[in-house]
Amino acid sequence: MSLLQIKIDEIIKTALMEDINYMDITSDYLLGDDNMSSANFIAKSNGVICGVDIAARVFSIIDNKILIQKLLFDGCKVKAGDVILTVRGSTKSILKAERTALNLIQHLSGISSMTARCVKLVSGTNASITDTRKTIPGMRALQKYAVAIGGGKNHRFNLSDCVMIKDNHIDALGGITKAIDLIKNKIGHTVKIEVETRNLAEVREAVSCGADIIMLDNMRYDMIKKAVKIIDSKAKTEASGNITEENLLEVAKTGVDIISLGALTHSVRAFDISLKIS
Amino acid sequence: MSLLQIKIDEIIKTALMEDINYMDITSDYLLGDDNMSSANFIAKSNGVICGVDIAARVFSIIDNKILIQKLLFDGCKVKAGDVILTVRGSTKSILKAERTALNLIQHLSGISSMTARCVKLVSGTNASITDTRKTIPGMRALQKYAVAIGGGKNHRFNLSDCVMIKDNHIDALGGITKAIDLIKNKIGHTVKIEVETRNLAEVREAVSCGADIIMLDNMRYDMIKKAVKIIDSKAKTEASGNITEENLLEVAKTGVDIISLGALTHSVRAFDISLKIS
Amino acid sequence: MSLLQIKIDEIIKTALMEDINYMDITSDYLLGDDNMSSANFIAKSNGVICGVDIAARVFSIIDNKILIQKLLFDGCKVKAGDVILTVRGSTKSILKAERTALNLIQHLSGISSMTARCVKLVSGTNASITDTRKTIPGMRALQKYAVAIGGGKNHRFNLSDCVMIKDNHIDALGGITKAIDLIKNKIGHTVKIEVETRNLAEVREAVSCGADIIMLDNMRYDMIKKAVKIIDSKAKTEASGNITEENLLEVAKTGVDIISLGALTHSVRAFDISLKIS
Amino acid sequence: MSLLQIKIDEIIKTALMEDINYMDITSDYLLGDDNMSSANFIAKSNGVICGVDIAARVFSIIDNKILIQKLLFDGCKVKAGDVILTVRGSTKSILKAERTALNLIQHLSGISSMTARCVKLVSGTNASITDTRKTIPGMRALQKYAVAIGGGKNHRFNLSDCVMIKDNHIDALGGITKAIDLIKNKIGHTVKIEVETRNLAEVREAVSCGADIIMLDNMRYDMIKKAVKIIDSKAKTEASGNITEENLLEVAKTGVDIISLGALTHSVRAFDISLKIS
Amino acid sequence: MSLLQIKIDEIIKTALMEDINYMDITSDYLLGDDNMSSANFIAKSNGVICGVDIAARVFSIIDNKILIQKLLFDGCKVKAGDVILTVRGSTKSILKAERTALNLIQHLSGISSMTARCVKLVSGTNASITDTRKTIPGMRALQKYAVAIGGGKNHRFNLSDCVMIKDNHIDALGGITKAIDLIKNKIGHTVKIEVETRNLAEVREAVSCGADIIMLDNMRYDMIKKAVKIIDSKAKTEASGNITEENLLEVAKTGVDIISLGALTHSVRAFDISLKIS
Amino acid sequence: MSLLQIKIDEIIKTALMEDINYMDITSDYLLGDDNMSSANFIAKSNGVICGVDIAARVFSIIDNKILIQKLLFDGCKVKAGDVILTVRGSTKSILKAERTALNLIQHLSGISSMTARCVKLVSGTNASITDTRKTIPGMRALQKYAVAIGGGKNHRFNLSDCVMIKDNHIDALGGITKAIDLIKNKIGHTVKIEVETRNLAEVREAVSCGADIIMLDNMRYDMIKKAVKIIDSKAKTEASGNITEENLLEVAKTGVDIISLGALTHSVRAFDISLKIS
Repeated sequence: MSLLQIKIDEIIKTALMEDINYMDITSDYLLGDDNMSSANFIAKSNGVICGVDIAARVFSIIDNKILIQKLLFDGCKVKAGDVILTVRGSTKSILKAERTALNLIQHLSGISSMTARCVKLVSGTNASITDTRKTIPGMRALQKYAVAIGGGKNHRFNLSDCVMIKDNHIDALGGITKAIDLIKNKIGHTVKIEVETRNLAEVREAVSCGADIIMLDNMRYDMIKKAVKIIDSKAKTEASGNITEENLLEVAKTGVDIISLGALTHSVRAFDISLKIS
Repeated sequence: MSLLQIKIDEIIKTALMEDINYMDITSDYLLGDDNMSSANFIAKSNGVICGVDIAARVFSIIDNKILIQKLLFDGCKVKAGDVILTVRGSTKSILKAERTALNLIQHLSGISSMTARCVKLVSGTNASITDTRKTIPGMRALQKYAVAIGGGKNHRFNLSDCVMIKDNHIDALGGITKAIDLIKNKIGHTVKIEVETRNLAEVREAVSCGADIIMLDNMRYDMIKKAVKIIDSKAKTEASGNITEENLLEVAKTGVDIISLGALTHSVRAFDISLKIS
Repeated sequence: MSLLQIKIDEIIKTALMEDINYMDITSDYLLGDDNMSSANFIAKSNGVICGVDIAARVFSIIDNKILIQKLLFDGCKVKAGDVILTVRGSTKSILKAERTALNLIQHLSGISSMTARCVKLVSGTNASITDTRKTIPGMRALQKYAVAIGGGKNHRFNLSDCVMIKDNHIDALGGITKAIDLIKNKIGHTVKIEVETRNLAEVREAVSCGADIIMLDNMRYDMIKKAVKIIDSKAKTEASGNITEENLLEVAKTGVDIISLGALTHSVRAFDISLKIS
Repeated sequence: MSLLQIKIDEIIKTALMEDINYMDITSDYLLGDDNMSSANFIAKSNGVICGVDIAARVFSIIDNKILIQKLLFDGCKVKAGDVILTVRGSTKSILKAERTALNLIQHLSGISSMTARCVKLVSGTNASITDTRKTIPGMRALQKYAVAIGGGKNHRFNLSDCVMIKDNHIDALGGITKAIDLIKNKIGHTVKIEVETRNLAEVREAVSCGADIIMLDNMRYDMIKKAVKIIDSKAKTEASGNITEENLLEVAKTGVDIISLGALTHSVRAFDISLKIS
Repeated sequence: MSLLQIKIDEIIKTALMEDINYMDITSDYLLGDDNMSSANFIAKSNGVICGVDIAARVFSIIDNKILIQKLLFDGCKVKAGDVILTVRGSTKSILKAERTALNLIQHLSGISSMTARCVKLVSGTNASITDTRKTIPGMRALQKYAVAIGGGKNHRFNLSDCVMIKDNHIDALGGITKAIDLIKNKIGHTVKIEVETRNLAEVREAVSCGADIIMLDNMRYDMIKKAVKIIDSKAKTEASGNITEENLLEVAKTGVDIISLGALTHSVRAFDISLKIS
Repeated sequence: MSLLQIKIDEIIKTALMEDINYMDITSDYLLGDDNMSSANFIAKSNGVICGVDIAARVFSIIDNKILIQKLLFDGCKVKAGDVILTVRGSTKSILKAERTALNLIQHLSGISSMTARCVKLVSGTNASITDTRKTIPGMRALQKYAVAIGGGKNHRFNLSDCVMIKDNHIDALGGITKAIDLIKNKIGHTVKIEVETRNLAEVREAVSCGADIIMLDNMRYDMIKKAVKIIDSKAKTEASGNITEENLLEVAKTGVDIISLGALTHSVRAFDISLKIS
């Protein structure tokens, strides 16, 4: 897995501390160390799985003697009934890790599955699906990873790594041109400039002063189409605002390069996975 | 607000570090310290608001000179268009805090609004609505707070504060009675015992050996009704498993005391709130 | 061991950082890596041992090549002279871990040994021995674990997991009945309600409105006896306040269910253990 | 107060997180924000108080609107009944801070009071009272501060700031002289060298090779006297091992410079202080 | 200041914990609370100052009653003798904060002063001065801020925010074109692609497949000139490797866009500033 | 290695988080898990190496399957071209760890190499080379370790472990004698007293009242000589202030015991090491 392991471990430890406090009074008092089990993570519906290594890691952190067998890996399509991961070892340890592991893999698979549906919806068009900064506090790295696993692309990670000029900036500086001229003198050469536009006049100005990316904010399909034509590949085009699985294809058909959806990370529906212990 | 402030501050700081890294290259390079704005948090749909103090706190942590005016408080019903909170001060600071504040208040208001809808659906019945441990890593305290704000009740916070005997425990011990007898000798006097049951035989055994709470796991309406009758107020009854806003009233009509819904916290739909800067 | 390992590791690391800072200038400058030793943890008096795994873990964290042999486990009775644990490996590593390991095992064994004495003192009565929230900052989980190892029971862990209604609450609400009625509508179904009472009138009121646990605060033996009779098993009874090893049996003879002692955790006498290096 | 505030705040926050988790369900559900109280910290026995600023700080961290009036300061003698500190403000906030504040001030005052008794016992002799590294994990800075407040002196803080040559080092190097010669070439000029001795031959060797401090480990009174005479002020002398309030004066009469007592910090008896709320 | 305050505070607290441990035994034992001083930060040579707010913040964290008067701000040119900052308050607090404040402002001003010298050296050419990832662990944000204050630009902050294709990647993929084609399909639209080239053939290939930035690694002046000509503004050009203040102008004269210097952050010479207390 | 491993790991993790954020988009997207490499750390100039174990540890933390072969250890002299360390394993992992490992080993080897040069310069004199508290925030332990590896000695680590009386203290107390008399009554017996002196009168007073160490602050050679003569081995002598590699020998020839140089840690020049991947 590509995510930085020490970052994942930190999140898992926070989650375990929160879920267990100091002991699992039920399992620790009822089960002996020699009570062993095997348990399967089983998909309950269809989608794209994400978080297999992370879920497995939860068990290793609780008890490094647990045996782990990964049957699928991140990005695999699953159908209801598919076994994703098998863990074997102390029942007590499995029960302690269960909820945290499920909470993580269900959340991430929810994201990757929705992303994969969106990517499929726009297949055949020019558009790629992208996330936003509308994430759950503390979970951004994992959520963006899940979007990538689902076939989406990642928008900027934080406010330090890409310029995004909004109306407040434009108003304060007295126009897009002045804002872009000023910022070009400040930023490093690895940083792109994106400008939020609300009408075609702004689109034209953004193109003319060399914006790298032009966001078409909450525009209707026909306006997006006109904007795409005006921009004419001189900048990347991004459609954003009130885009759902329902209207996604219509937006994509405008020819826009990127469609960003906050819902991918702010309104995640957990992907149903159960842990069957035997 | 009742939540421990130092815990909230920790979450906010994690979120800000994640969202800003070291600077907001757009606002820090484009806006002067003397550029001032006022901004309103405006509800975009109807629901119950949660996270007003938390959102306000994000601004104070970024810049303690920002003036904050709270127009509503946690638990208030809002309609689309209602102003929730007004902040005044440096535009730069407002733009830095914006995304983190919105991410928090939208997530929490999503939880409280769904909870309030569920509570309303079962009004007139005996049932109360309860959360679960199916939460987002690092967010449990805030999520449970939002459930309470929405009119729900909180289930156990972690594995240390309530016994929950599941089938694995029962099988390992050789029956509900043996499990309960054993655990009663171990736990403190402030801890309750809940038992998961899958059929009426288990329900009868759980009642007879003095369980405090009997969970009726994934049972159909008629079986729940029978279980409630067997238990006859000798224990609290909790229905759980595959309960949605659609079938919630049917479950409630069985006479069960508590209905727990994982979706309240694991499949949150962000409540739409926008920040209008002027 | 049942305690969450990542919590223990955190405490051990804090202790080692505090004790070593960056190096052990004596051992690091005087001893070579090839200087090997074996060391025994030896009890210097009689009691119940607690912290064997934790002490062993200190050595593993300092140097994972140290060999560890546990001769006793938590909860074992020890007599002066008994060997508890043997460690073998680099002398330098053993000397670095020594003080932190001893500080932990001596403190925890002090708690478990005193608890065991108290439990023995009340054997044959109805009473069980319980701890309180009067703990050393940062050490609550370990201290409560040691009480359980000594045969005691754990009182509530924190202010979130059990209601405890005190005189200030009663006065603010206008009586026990009103306070209990109000709180019952707020708390989750896994939470018990304990009420602090100072006289028999309060005891009667607490019983009548369904308190789960009634604390008899600083009452004399005869008043406790009367209270126990009034309560008549309709609630658990807890005696608290100025109870010592000297008067413990007298309190237990009143028929009370639980006796809570702050001294178990706030006035711990370290159990004498020495590390003999050879 | 001299202790580094950010270190104290860290300990207080750890303690509050541990004691409150996310809310105080009793006070938060029963008391309104407008319920105000005043509360006095009252000594229940005689001693030397320590931790006034720290206890006060707990209230400020919970609620910075609480008014604080310090009637005594660290190091003051108190008699049973003396008011130490008064806090005024929200009852809810006072009840949340109460236990953590008391746990800290009672522990620290227990240390300072015992230290003061020991200092008084040896008054008129040459001896000063010193602590050890036998402290509670995470609490060393606070515990050493309390020893100083009680009139004692602080031994080395950690393994980096003073050399302490023990028998294992001596054996490994082939004698005290060789060990001291080697270490003198390594350590910085601000570091002193202490040598543990078990007999008069070792004492003589330690003096002859220029040890700064000679520890007389577990020696009887007459042997200590002889050692002190041999050393003849060429090094500081420290008596250590099995020293209690009972035999302290006898040890001091030997003429030794320093007497170190592990019990000052490893077997603390909490000083009884109550918080009376009105 | 633009840097995220909570990040700065974290660094300052780490530094203070490291420098003070638990108390300043000299000042805490010798100086009373009523001993007041005023102190000036005075430049001892000529340069560009950086870290004024950070140095001031150290004093506020130690003692929030210290009065602070900033005479200069980050980016100001200073001459030997100039007063930068004045602090007034408790002598004890000033002495505790002194070293940490100086360590920070001297390090950062060393960076900004060297950067300013480099920027001046290339004035009149096309080149801008840029930092690298060759930073001191934990200090990257502050160091990059100081480069910006000195008039330089920031290269990528971390491995997540810009692609940099090196020879290992090229070899593994079988050529620059294949590597760029592959990565273009993976990365988000806000990310630029930089390619490291070692000869003109690689330069030509990088241009032809649309690299955003082409690094000319350790090339001689004439080869850089040829590369710049080949690239012909189709990509940004960056010269890197063994560039010092001595040869900087020669490199700049080649027409390259960006010159990156590791020495700006990995070989910082502290800028001499003294704190005069009166 | 003698440094506390958990402290080093903490610094490495901070550095990796800072350098990688959540993934290495170049290597993670371009290289497969089966792409393997071997890489050598090669010295590019002559010096004394420091940080071999630390650099190796960076690779192990990123990927514990990487094979590590240490060819040299801390303190070894190296010539340009010498191989210090070889790592073998996943190319992706090697590239992720590369920068952090180099940043650490280059910084520490820069310190040890300069220290070794200074030690050599004063060989044959009485003087030893010592560091100061002028360190980079968060790096003190590592920097002091590197000074020791280079053959230098460590001055006090923090404000808690040695008294240093400066002019402000002297002025506040009314003279050196009064200051020393007062502090002797407060500090523990393991703590030494150093006094800063600016003229020979102060030197004489410091000797007469028993200072352990006398700092000769910014004195000229002849005055240092006189001071050394006056002190006549009754205290350690330390020369400090504006000492460079150029004037170091002259200072040493005065007969002073210790020469402390801030530049060893505040103006480190990174030692050039490259990682050649094959």
